[in-house]
Amino acid sequence: MFNIGIVGATGYTGVVLMSLLLTHPDAKINLITSNTYKGRKISDIFPLFKGCFEEVLQPTGKDHRGSCDVYFLCLPHGTSMEKVRELFDGKALIVDLSADFRFEDVSVYESAYIPHTAKELIPKAVFGLPELYRQNIKGAKLIGNPGCYPTSAILALYPLVKKGMLVGDIFVDSKSGMSGAGREAKIGSLFCEVSEGFRAYNVGVHRHEPEIQKEVNKYAPLKISFVPHLVPMSRGILTTVYGRLAKQFKTADILDIYRKTYERDHFVRVMDENIYPDTRFVRFSNYCDIGLKVLGDGRIVIISAIDNLVKGASGQAVQNMNVALGLDEKAGLSSIPQYP
Amino acid sequence: MFNIGIVGATGYTGVVLMSLLLTHPDAKINLITSNTYKGRKISDIFPLFKGCFEEVLQPTGKDHRGSCDVYFLCLPHGTSMEKVRELFDGKALIVDLSADFRFEDVSVYESAYIPHTAKELIPKAVFGLPELYRQNIKGAKLIGNPGCYPTSAILALYPLVKKGMLVGDIFVDSKSGMSGAGREAKIGSLFCEVSEGFRAYNVGVHRHEPEIQKEVNKYAPLKISFVPHLVPMSRGILTTVYGRLAKQFKTADILDIYRKTYERDHFVRVMDENIYPDTRFVRFSNYCDIGLKVLGDGRIVIISAIDNLVKGASGQAVQNMNVALGLDEKAGLSSIPQYP
Amino acid sequence: MFNIGIVGATGYTGVVLMSLLLTHPDAKINLITSNTYKGRKISDIFPLFKGCFEEVLQPTGKDHRGSCDVYFLCLPHGTSMEKVRELFDGKALIVDLSADFRFEDVSVYESAYIPHTAKELIPKAVFGLPELYRQNIKGAKLIGNPGCYPTSAILALYPLVKKGMLVGDIFVDSKSGMSGAGREAKIGSLFCEVSEGFRAYNVGVHRHEPEIQKEVNKYAPLKISFVPHLVPMSRGILTTVYGRLAKQFKTADILDIYRKTYERDHFVRVMDENIYPDTRFVRFSNYCDIGLKVLGDGRIVIISAIDNLVKGASGQAVQNMNVALGLDEKAGLSSIPQYP
Amino acid sequence: MFNIGIVGATGYTGVVLMSLLLTHPDAKINLITSNTYKGRKISDIFPLFKGCFEEVLQPTGKDHRGSCDVYFLCLPHGTSMEKVRELFDGKALIVDLSADFRFEDVSVYESAYIPHTAKELIPKAVFGLPELYRQNIKGAKLIGNPGCYPTSAILALYPLVKKGMLVGDIFVDSKSGMSGAGREAKIGSLFCEVSEGFRAYNVGVHRHEPEIQKEVNKYAPLKISFVPHLVPMSRGILTTVYGRLAKQFKTADILDIYRKTYERDHFVRVMDENIYPDTRFVRFSNYCDIGLKVLGDGRIVIISAIDNLVKGASGQAVQNMNVALGLDEKAGLSSIPQYP
Repeated sequence: MFNIGIVGATGYTGVVLMSLLLTHPDAKINLITSNTYKGRKISDIFPLFKGCFEEVLQPTGKDHRGSCDVYFLCLPHGTSMEKVRELFDGKALIVDLSADFRFEDVSVYESAYIPHTAKELIPKAVFGLPELYRQNIKGAKLIGNPGCYPTSAILALYPLVKKGMLVGDIFVDSKSGMSGAGREAKIGSLFCEVSEGFRAYNVGVHRHEPEIQKEVNKYAPLKISFVPHLVPMSRGILTTVYGRLAKQFKTADILDIYRKTYERDHFVRVMDENIYPDTRFVRFSNYCDIGLKVLGDGRIVIISAIDNLVKGASGQAVQNMNVALGLDEKAGLSSIPQYP
Repeated sequence: MFNIGIVGATGYTGVVLMSLLLTHPDAKINLITSNTYKGRKISDIFPLFKGCFEEVLQPTGKDHRGSCDVYFLCLPHGTSMEKVRELFDGKALIVDLSADFRFEDVSVYESAYIPHTAKELIPKAVFGLPELYRQNIKGAKLIGNPGCYPTSAILALYPLVKKGMLVGDIFVDSKSGMSGAGREAKIGSLFCEVSEGFRAYNVGVHRHEPEIQKEVNKYAPLKISFVPHLVPMSRGILTTVYGRLAKQFKTADILDIYRKTYERDHFVRVMDENIYPDTRFVRFSNYCDIGLKVLGDGRIVIISAIDNLVKGASGQAVQNMNVALGLDEKAGLSSIPQYP
Repeated sequence: MFNIGIVGATGYTGVVLMSLLLTHPDAKINLITSNTYKGRKISDIFPLFKGCFEEVLQPTGKDHRGSCDVYFLCLPHGTSMEKVRELFDGKALIVDLSADFRFEDVSVYESAYIPHTAKELIPKAVFGLPELYRQNIKGAKLIGNPGCYPTSAILALYPLVKKGMLVGDIFVDSKSGMSGAGREAKIGSLFCEVSEGFRAYNVGVHRHEPEIQKEVNKYAPLKISFVPHLVPMSRGILTTVYGRLAKQFKTADILDIYRKTYERDHFVRVMDENIYPDTRFVRFSNYCDIGLKVLGDGRIVIISAIDNLVKGASGQAVQNMNVALGLDEKAGLSSIPQYP
Repeated sequence: MFNIGIVGATGYTGVVLMSLLLTHPDAKINLITSNTYKGRKISDIFPLFKGCFEEVLQPTGKDHRGSCDVYFLCLPHGTSMEKVRELFDGKALIVDLSADFRFEDVSVYESAYIPHTAKELIPKAVFGLPELYRQNIKGAKLIGNPGCYPTSAILALYPLVKKGMLVGDIFVDSKSGMSGAGREAKIGSLFCEVSEGFRAYNVGVHRHEPEIQKEVNKYAPLKISFVPHLVPMSRGILTTVYGRLAKQFKTADILDIYRKTYERDHFVRVMDENIYPDTRFVRFSNYCDIGLKVLGDGRIVIISAIDNLVKGASGQAVQNMNVALGLDEKAGLSSIPQYP
């Protein structure tokens, strides 16, 4: 049984982590922290936990070194790197859900975010996308958990870019539910500002673009254009990728490539021909569903769906923990998508 | 391990039953039926099950006697009583989610519904509200699973009516998510007819009123007025009950009565003073949350929240199965409410 | 042509006022204010106005006396009374959308809100519910525009309480869309905290209860119990009122009383028997739809629906202006409900 | 004053047409038809019209020749062409909202739809996109009103394709509210099947693709890829277009081209740099808002937003009538977008 700490437990990713870990056979949550709500019972803040989990929140600011076997950090970038420096001892596993340890090349991080103040730890971090980096994650002590958009985009692109099958521009059109904006009081996230509306934002300047770009560029010098949109729903990301194949293929052939690429990946489900993912059918699960179609003359459309808070954040974090510690990769992640 | 049959598996209650039973340690689903989709894989109809459960649907019309230890019937009233007659053998357990076996007095059933054609089985049926009838449910072979509105209303009223503490009119104002209307193609259930709207329906003539009324009248000759409303959301019922106490009490005293009444009932959570239930905090769980307030001069407001498809239907059906078969009452029902 | 000022123009009531007044044949908006956005064009804050209305926002804090014929104040209570004192000169018309001038009896105001600092003006104010106080509103210079919940509840109750036809407890169960919470960054109003949830709040302690209570008590010493709820939608209030008639009547008889009471009131629409209001059918209009049913033994259910931002706020404010200035009561309010 | 007939008045486009035309200074609706609801008052079907418009529905099947100056046909394709043949007399204006008269080349129509049975009328029809074909529409007697997706896509593309400024693949990623699916009882349009979900459909095979394609090909031999998606909202389309400029430009330069192209088009609003359209800010209006950004090396993203039922259907139909009859193009279309 591993002792688990969740640092910054009262945002949406923290809440989902608690929900998942409470069903994990090898995990015991023994630390949850929040500066805003410290000293209060988690079930008083979120009555959903009443009778299930009634732990008291500790201050995030306190030094919690040595108290847990695994720490999940659900903190803003910048704050997170400082906490990692504090907690990192080469023994405990740290899964960082911020952007701070997702980039091997610190200059890319710094041009998209802020100056990095724990650079010495970057070489110890692995990018926590198990479908691509399972071997590196095994035994790792510091994992940079990927962003939600990058998870959906990279899993959609990987089988083709890995084989060098794409040429020309790649357009990544992503649509996210509002929980991606976090549990912060912002006018733009109010019900009345979101319901019955649809919009793009951060066109061409979203910080997740370099995260997608760097993964694609490990295989091919292709240029990604990324446009995120906000959907009036709470959970889910659907990403539609547009590109062009280097040569002509049938849809069925490409689907076969996807199936083979992901044949050992429980959480990636490749759809049959003419079936496309729907975020409804992955909600509350760790699945990433992928469908695609080759259009007449080599153009291709690839569509992926994830729950942004599960496979796009907390579920993937648990999956990373499982891989790192040598546990069953599915432990704590067996929940079936919930519908309707 | 009990073999389970789900008859009429492709409505919302059927889908939720499958989701719950797939996590049940003592259950194995070996029969699912649908006349509409017979011969097709359930995961082709509902891709959420892809990789989790890929059973082929059998025709509902076929005789499935003897094939299962437990049958859950998710059929319309009228159709259901015929199926019960076909399947009932005194050995298998039948949990009927329709209204057909909820009424001890067939004349009440017939005045609200249709002529009953399996009257001889009514004496064998028990009303499946475990918090009130746990002893009767143990060992039963035919269970009439309560309606969603009645579950929310009766659990809100029971501690007071049982003790004869209410006088005068009782007004039950219920608000339900749209999954209560079922997975049927009806104009009134279209997204554009529901979103951004709120309305009452069947004012004073809803079929669930006599179901609430008969339970209340077991304890007191009080008159219930029931008005259901539709909320633009998928899941959840919030019921607000208005009444008058026979004599003056403090809110805290009444809350104590509720806590004592339900102290052995895992799935009923009584809120603290000044905290009221929110359907968000019971979604996807079998909980019924209850809060209340005594107003100045004896008037009382009691508020309950359930997930209409879980505690209001399929979760309660599994709970009934567990009680009837002597299993852990919580088996298959351990999922924490999902938020956000 | 009347010069109009909208003080506090960038909340939801301000935006709706601008939309309505831009179509008003006798009104010209020549002042809009906002402390938050002063100096910016309204169409930069709300692109919906691009090409329609591009006025620059003035500071709310500035003294705007003498610049307009009519001022609409869309300010918080407390702030509003100070602004009224500043602007009131007995010539310009002031329509105050806050609670500050809704109560004839300052002690009721002060027990629900805060100490009143402009008491000397209270005798000059009229309660701006035209269906009840049209004669008083004519020629008035200070109008306390009613709250959204009170508008829906009082119009539902008025024909019966006026005639002394109700006895016993009156329970007012109201359900409001989220725009009632205003355009403020609050966690409880975030999309993810509202969507797919339903809850009661301020049970028995909402400030709108005394506003309803005082109007009812002008006719009868009945006790109101008021419970507001939040609906996952932007606009609309549905209020369900439960009570008991002093003697037995048929539904049709009571509907006749409502039709007669409101026969000169363009904006109140009394439904036919067995038809009940739906907020969808009043959205974006100044209508209040009312339906009702007498239950078996004298219990009665009355249901009203309004758009909380129109008849519940800005539309009613324009209606009040029209009545006060002797204009066509419907001017600027001719828009048909928008559906779907 | 023109006498107006609305044939097939009880779908969403019919309802919106009635709402718009009731405010039109030169229009009088004297015929509304519906086979489903014939003989009933429109305000009984849609209580929003109570007190505003209470006309009785005539059968659609009847011959209504000669009774109106203008007919709007809100019928399915196939049915519509037969009705046009019946009504067309070279005097009355017919605005057909179906696809039947949108294609100059009947073979394109027939490969996307069905065999055309009124081919002889095709040469008399004009494609009713006033921003492109205003001169042709003047005096026309048969107008094929464009589809909702094509309206949003063509207006986004027109300024660039007209000048031959695009090269390579064009990807059109459109997101539509559910009213685009019509007021038909279909399981896929149920609230519970749409809310909290997001999906693509008809990938690469939607019938609106050839409608976009044929307009683009009038200027350039570019290939369009069109992928429509469904958004859990009632109204609005946001279209994100991805392409590549033939040579390098700044965003500001391209915005200037858009502003000049649409300088005489009241209903197209070109956003400022770094501002992107939101469907919320065009809802219930006839506006098409367009924003765009040139990415680093010649890739371009163009985003347009319309209300699918107004500029995408009924509003455009009224605009077409206005142009055809020589009326003020804005008559009946002056409503400001409604928010929140």
